[in-house]
Amino acid sequence: MKRLNFDVDVIDCEGGEGVDLDILRQKLEADQAHVVKAVCVVHNETSTGVTSDIGEVRQVLGIDLLLPTRHHQIVTYQSIEASKHAKSTRGYFDWGEYIKCYKSGSYWPYTPSVQLLYGLRASLDLILKVEGLENVIARHSRLAEATRQAVIAWGLTVCAKEPKWHSTVVTGVVVPPWLNSNDVIKVAWKKYNLSLGIGLGKVAGKVFRIGHLGYVDELQLLGALAGVELALTDVGYPVTLGSGVAAAQAILSRQTPSIASRL
Amino acid sequence: MKRLNFDVDVIDCEGGEGVDLDILRQKLEADQAHVVKAVCVVHNETSTGVTSDIGEVRQVLGIDLLLPTRHHQIVTYQSIEASKHAKSTRGYFDWGEYIKCYKSGSYWPYTPSVQLLYGLRASLDLILKVEGLENVIARHSRLAEATRQAVIAWGLTVCAKEPKWHSTVVTGVVVPPWLNSNDVIKVAWKKYNLSLGIGLGKVAGKVFRIGHLGYVDELQLLGALAGVELALTDVGYPVTLGSGVAAAQAILSRQTPSIASRL
Amino acid sequence: MKRLNFDVDVIDCEGGEGVDLDILRQKLEADQAHVVKAVCVVHNETSTGVTSDIGEVRQVLGIDLLLPTRHHQIVTYQSIEASKHAKSTRGYFDWGEYIKCYKSGSYWPYTPSVQLLYGLRASLDLILKVEGLENVIARHSRLAEATRQAVIAWGLTVCAKEPKWHSTVVTGVVVPPWLNSNDVIKVAWKKYNLSLGIGLGKVAGKVFRIGHLGYVDELQLLGALAGVELALTDVGYPVTLGSGVAAAQAILSRQTPSIASRL
Amino acid sequence: MKRLNFDVDVIDCEGGEGVDLDILRQKLEADQAHVVKAVCVVHNETSTGVTSDIGEVRQVLGIDLLLPTRHHQIVTYQSIEASKHAKSTRGYFDWGEYIKCYKSGSYWPYTPSVQLLYGLRASLDLILKVEGLENVIARHSRLAEATRQAVIAWGLTVCAKEPKWHSTVVTGVVVPPWLNSNDVIKVAWKKYNLSLGIGLGKVAGKVFRIGHLGYVDELQLLGALAGVELALTDVGYPVTLGSGVAAAQAILSRQTPSIASRL
Repeated sequence: MKRLNFDVDVIDCEGGEGVDLDILRQKLEADQAHVVKAVCVVHNETSTGVTSDIGEVRQVLGIDLLLPTRHHQIVTYQSIEASKHAKSTRGYFDWGEYIKCYKSGSYWPYTPSVQLLYGLRASLDLILKVEGLENVIARHSRLAEATRQAVIAWGLTVCAKEPKWHSTVVTGVVVPPWLNSNDVIKVAWKKYNLSLGIGLGKVAGKVFRIGHLGYVDELQLLGALAGVELALTDVGYPVTLGSGVAAAQAILSRQTPSIASRL
Repeated sequence: MKRLNFDVDVIDCEGGEGVDLDILRQKLEADQAHVVKAVCVVHNETSTGVTSDIGEVRQVLGIDLLLPTRHHQIVTYQSIEASKHAKSTRGYFDWGEYIKCYKSGSYWPYTPSVQLLYGLRASLDLILKVEGLENVIARHSRLAEATRQAVIAWGLTVCAKEPKWHSTVVTGVVVPPWLNSNDVIKVAWKKYNLSLGIGLGKVAGKVFRIGHLGYVDELQLLGALAGVELALTDVGYPVTLGSGVAAAQAILSRQTPSIASRL
Repeated sequence: MKRLNFDVDVIDCEGGEGVDLDILRQKLEADQAHVVKAVCVVHNETSTGVTSDIGEVRQVLGIDLLLPTRHHQIVTYQSIEASKHAKSTRGYFDWGEYIKCYKSGSYWPYTPSVQLLYGLRASLDLILKVEGLENVIARHSRLAEATRQAVIAWGLTVCAKEPKWHSTVVTGVVVPPWLNSNDVIKVAWKKYNLSLGIGLGKVAGKVFRIGHLGYVDELQLLGALAGVELALTDVGYPVTLGSGVAAAQAILSRQTPSIASRL
Repeated sequence: MKRLNFDVDVIDCEGGEGVDLDILRQKLEADQAHVVKAVCVVHNETSTGVTSDIGEVRQVLGIDLLLPTRHHQIVTYQSIEASKHAKSTRGYFDWGEYIKCYKSGSYWPYTPSVQLLYGLRASLDLILKVEGLENVIARHSRLAEATRQAVIAWGLTVCAKEPKWHSTVVTGVVVPPWLNSNDVIKVAWKKYNLSLGIGLGKVAGKVFRIGHLGYVDELQLLGALAGVELALTDVGYPVTLGSGVAAAQAILSRQTPSIASRL
């Protein structure tokens, strides 16, 4: 007979805002009895395009940012120690079994999803061998900046309230009150084969989202921005065709490097 | 011992021009002895973006446009009859073997390229079942028109000399004499992951080509046009960023219908 | 502040045995206070090839087998009601969000794994449209029976202790005490490209497993059985080559129907 | 105006026989005027499973076997010289254009079938990097020998009349006169999802063919042989189930090496 028993303390915030480090610090300082066992934060909130700085969160927690020395060492020593004494009932997610199998060379205690592992392998090759990790990060940063410039050219507003919270993987776009963002999304999908994200929860109907994450390049983004312009035109929002594309092109023309493998 | 023996009479023309129906008519009228057994014309010349009207060619030849009654009946009765008396040595392309197999239900006298047949099947489903043949044709026409408007907005010239020769599948673009079209192609490929076609033969270095054939939609084309603008900028051709995209968007905004399956 | 709190009562059993209905009945009858909220049983234990009859478990629980009236109705009315009053912290697995989205026609509250859904769609088409559900079930039953006959022909033992526990998707094979089942598995993999399952936990080293689940047909199974014979020979177990294959062929020769789509 | 004019002299032979070197030698010695410009032979006749030794053919022709020094040098110097003076009308197959493009680094004068090139690249990687060319050749030889032993165990005859003509990629199997080989093929396909080759031309109805070419391993072959046994049983040919499989297993048990990448 085993017993599971834990409490969850949720800190609420506004859409468009990231982790409030002051509240977090305050809660932790108040925890003299060390009741708090874990802190869980959203790194990148995809529903609004808000990123929180995990490095700063770790500083508040008093944890040094330990760089992994080998690629598989993504679970820290402390958490493995903690898991040895944890009383929760676990099966698939019991690290002990994985560590045992890893040592014996058979790697997986249970049947893994082989297809997903092959996909992961291929994706990692694209990132690490073909494009290069630094280039991937720079590309995401460049595409995000180009997207935000397009949003400004359209006279619309980025959802993330401060630059420190700008996500490099998705941009939330706030529409004027008289416009339903779902109408923009609908026409983009139905006429232009463009899949924009909907606003969720508090920003439903007020926000649409442009994803620029993963295996997406400059021209795919510019095509998507051109599609947003067409959709905005169709729903009656006054936008100059090509204006957001041109603003984004100005960024990309300056920042896009030659593709390493084609020099 | 078999003997093959035939003559080929080639009618030359300028790049940018299609079939000259007058010369064709003249040659055929001069052929009182019915020496000519076959007329071979290029329907769509991909190296320049020039299309010839096959219906008009058939009228010059005096052949009615026989609509096939069943999808496999793409070989006319006359040509099957002619093949029975042909003296050429044939193997893989001997229709007789195919007709025999077709009747017996085994379809192929020799091993077909199964992968290509599956690909063909999937493509035909996309054309006939998913999008619809009429929609496919209209889309090609719309994308070609949008591309030509972008070319004009850039201050460049379409290679096909007359509208009747405009291809709906590829547009050849003539650059000014001081610019080498291969430089545009090179930077498009090396920086923007955009594969433009080179000019071939007489138009080498003078023309680059934008393909808008097959499974390509409005936003992919607009992305490609944005990429041409970036490449032109990089090689020093004075183009206003977003100008060609906007000209193409104006066409597409008016002409793009809702996607049938998403209504 | 939310609190999670529940107890788990695990009923242990031997490898090779299924659910003990008597113990289950006894536990439930002793629960006068209705403390038990859920009963969780393994339908098919893949580590031993043991299946438990869920219909009989439901009878012990006093639950009628409610046939779903529509394909998506796989969550019972009772469990949806229960979820409304549950106090656990939930996100991705909160049915309420799914039901809300399902009604609005947008189907998914959060980003689904689109690739897995496409894969599921294709698999369901293969099962329901191409082969037919009844045919799929009959094939699994036929392949399992053929495998067990091969095991007997080799002089080895099926792990599942009674016929009522025979799994149709995987067969555990017990090797003699002087043989390490992992050696059979190793040579099958290293020489014959055959992936057999290892014995887990209590049956480690004593059992290897032959999977006959999913998109596998008669000849693939016979090839695998031929591979087991080669591997057994290599590790010194005395097996007559072809003996298990012949025993399985005898079953398959009688039971294999013509493929519906090729009649 | 261009003229094409050439004669073709076909040397006939029986099904089951390869190139008759004596007739070839005789024809060439009789050609004092050097009228013969090219000799075309079938290396591997897939309709019967007959291979001719190209090395011996070259010796009769008086051509040394020139080993290519680089992987792309598969066209000999002589044939390139000959093509420069050839008067035939050529387009896609004009080597001159390819040589020109190869030197300029653009590789292809016209649009290549990119998908087939990617497929070729992947296949060459499997052959040269993953398995190793020598291992691939040894595997084909091993599978062919195992197949022939199965044919003998079934009391049937290999089509290729002499061992020197045995193909390593496909085995033609002659059935007794009272049996139609197409019936075996039909039941293999309709019940066992096994695609055997039909007999063509002179051996139609008398021969079925087992392919063991390409990415096929020992257990796939054994599965196919088990399927032939089931099909032969269904059409009334008296075969002991497992007999051909066992004969093939005996060869494979001795000859199959460990897989290099799994040592």
